[in-house]
Amino acid sequence: MKGLVLLGSTGSIGRQTLDVVRSNPGKFKVLGLAAGNNIELLAKQVEEFRPEMLYCQATAAEGAIPKTGWRFTPMSEMVTQADAGAIMVATVGREGLKPTLAALDARKNVALANKEVIVMAGNAVMEGARRNSVEILPVDSEPSAMWQCMRGEGKEIQRIFLTASGGPFRTRAISDLPKVTQEEALNHPTWRMGRKITVDSATLMNKGMEVIEASWLFGVPIDRIEVVIHPQSIIHSMVEFVDGSVKAQLGPPDMRLPIQFSLSYPDRWENPTLPRLDPVKVANLGFEPLDLERYPCFKLALEAGRKGGTYPAVLAAADEAAVLMFLAHQIGFHEIPVIVDAALSAHKPTYTPSLEDILDADSWAREYAGRQTVA
Amino acid sequence: MKGLVLLGSTGSIGRQTLDVVRSNPGKFKVLGLAAGNNIELLAKQVEEFRPEMLYCQATAAEGAIPKTGWRFTPMSEMVTQADAGAIMVATVGREGLKPTLAALDARKNVALANKEVIVMAGNAVMEGARRNSVEILPVDSEPSAMWQCMRGEGKEIQRIFLTASGGPFRTRAISDLPKVTQEEALNHPTWRMGRKITVDSATLMNKGMEVIEASWLFGVPIDRIEVVIHPQSIIHSMVEFVDGSVKAQLGPPDMRLPIQFSLSYPDRWENPTLPRLDPVKVANLGFEPLDLERYPCFKLALEAGRKGGTYPAVLAAADEAAVLMFLAHQIGFHEIPVIVDAALSAHKPTYTPSLEDILDADSWAREYAGRQTVA
Repeated sequence: MKGLVLLGSTGSIGRQTLDVVRSNPGKFKVLGLAAGNNIELLAKQVEEFRPEMLYCQATAAEGAIPKTGWRFTPMSEMVTQADAGAIMVATVGREGLKPTLAALDARKNVALANKEVIVMAGNAVMEGARRNSVEILPVDSEPSAMWQCMRGEGKEIQRIFLTASGGPFRTRAISDLPKVTQEEALNHPTWRMGRKITVDSATLMNKGMEVIEASWLFGVPIDRIEVVIHPQSIIHSMVEFVDGSVKAQLGPPDMRLPIQFSLSYPDRWENPTLPRLDPVKVANLGFEPLDLERYPCFKLALEAGRKGGTYPAVLAAADEAAVLMFLAHQIGFHEIPVIVDAALSAHKPTYTPSLEDILDADSWAREYAGRQTVA
Repeated sequence: MKGLVLLGSTGSIGRQTLDVVRSNPGKFKVLGLAAGNNIELLAKQVEEFRPEMLYCQATAAEGAIPKTGWRFTPMSEMVTQADAGAIMVATVGREGLKPTLAALDARKNVALANKEVIVMAGNAVMEGARRNSVEILPVDSEPSAMWQCMRGEGKEIQRIFLTASGGPFRTRAISDLPKVTQEEALNHPTWRMGRKITVDSATLMNKGMEVIEASWLFGVPIDRIEVVIHPQSIIHSMVEFVDGSVKAQLGPPDMRLPIQFSLSYPDRWENPTLPRLDPVKVANLGFEPLDLERYPCFKLALEAGRKGGTYPAVLAAADEAAVLMFLAHQIGFHEIPVIVDAALSAHKPTYTPSLEDILDADSWAREYAGRQTVA
């Protein structure tokens, strides 16, 4: 039995992580759950899984959680418990950063779904893993695919082909983008995900952040990571080796598979509840070039990734603020990149940032972006 | 420098193996070359590579080979030389069997392109490798793909998807097959190969033999190997693991890549002469079900593989005889499976055959098939 600490238990990845726990009876003991403000769902999860440790952001709501014997525990303390054998960081935005670093320093492998953590502080995270001889286990389907393709291989990696569905606006006239609605942006063609990441998948900001994430995780320069549009979301990414051989990882678009692999690693577990690929039913896997004009957020992400320092933190924070404004009907879809671009342009960077520098840049960018009124 | 012994140097795989040697200067010393009857080409290869050991079937032709200091050496002796660090068995039919077993007993890994060897004597070959703690290194593009996908993985394999181009007659009316010409059968849509294997790729006998080969190589039952038509020949095969994750190996159809990997293993070597995959240029990867009615040879191969014993040896030998008759314009394309079927039906099997039993079954089947006159 692995002792599981799950940060972000009420989000999309958190709920699917608990599905994986349910479909693998006898494999996990849920030690700790942490959530934001969805107290109703957290209360149900506590009833079902009886964790020893609990955390929620809405501390005032603590009283609404059934008293099943848990103790209120900060996230950075949860992840350092001796019997925590599986740590899943599925928080959103900057929340996961400090617990991730704390877990690494406690010599724990960390299953990391919260990509902003590595986008904003890639150097600190990878250095933490290296220093403690532990691993970051990718959860996102694309980095998980790359990781699976690299298994058993040496360092002879030539290129990574990072696949992108292209989101709901892949074939929409670019001149229409200012008019698209929230409902359209949230209607992803292949993946069911949380709202923030679904909007990021429509702008391809999510794909740009994945480039930065993959670059840190696998030590491959950004310019050797090529994004290819693959509308079916069956091939989750491909890795080319120096001899020209390419390996791909495929599967129906279902996050429970990479979630389970991050928790079962280095083993693979049978799980009849997971969907199976039927190539004949899929019939066709297509590839198209990425149209940069259609996806300005993607371009901004790559530029920020290449510049490094505090730029990626500003990118992630300004994007989160802008997406929240879009979801609150305060700005249009096409104004998301305008706001992110403004924050990146106004930012005074630090190139070898401390953790405090990164968190300061994050706070500054959120505030700056929140103050933008777009013409 | 690896000392290379190349059996079958004048065939398609043999010539491409020497291309790989040429494009990796300083990596190989060619120790031994063995060929059949193409003395003219063998003479050129001897001039260029100056092997220490030489063998040719046409012993009378020995005098036509430049005297560059080689000694005439039987194949089974060549492969046991202490400095032979890379053994490539690229012979045709039964020729490779005894040298393969001799190499394994000399504790050498064997790069095996001659799939008939493992089809006819899979148990002896795999047992030879196990007993001597050495490996069979697949050379054929499909088993090489599976092997690459399984690298670093455990035993948790669920299924293998073996891809097949479908050959030149994939979309031809079945009623037309009796009329197809030799030229049409030899015009493979995606691969340039030797004549015998090209005909086997048109009948899908080659694919059936690959199922048997893969079953032996990877210990996966025949019924867990699914053949899928993939007309582009870019995905060379896929492996599904117990958790539903699927890994594929891809590349432009060029045998030099799997040949090089079998020789560079466990490393991968940069080689700018090898082609690169451009997913956007490929644009589409398709999958179709296999139509058993169109490919009776495939069905016969699977039946022989399931029965085991001496049946696969009869299959391979009768097929070779029938294909030679087709190439000599003695029978029609549609008569190849009729002859193979007749040999399998007439065969008196042995189920735990010795090597002699296998070679006897092979000889019997060749003779039996050669005597068939098809109505």
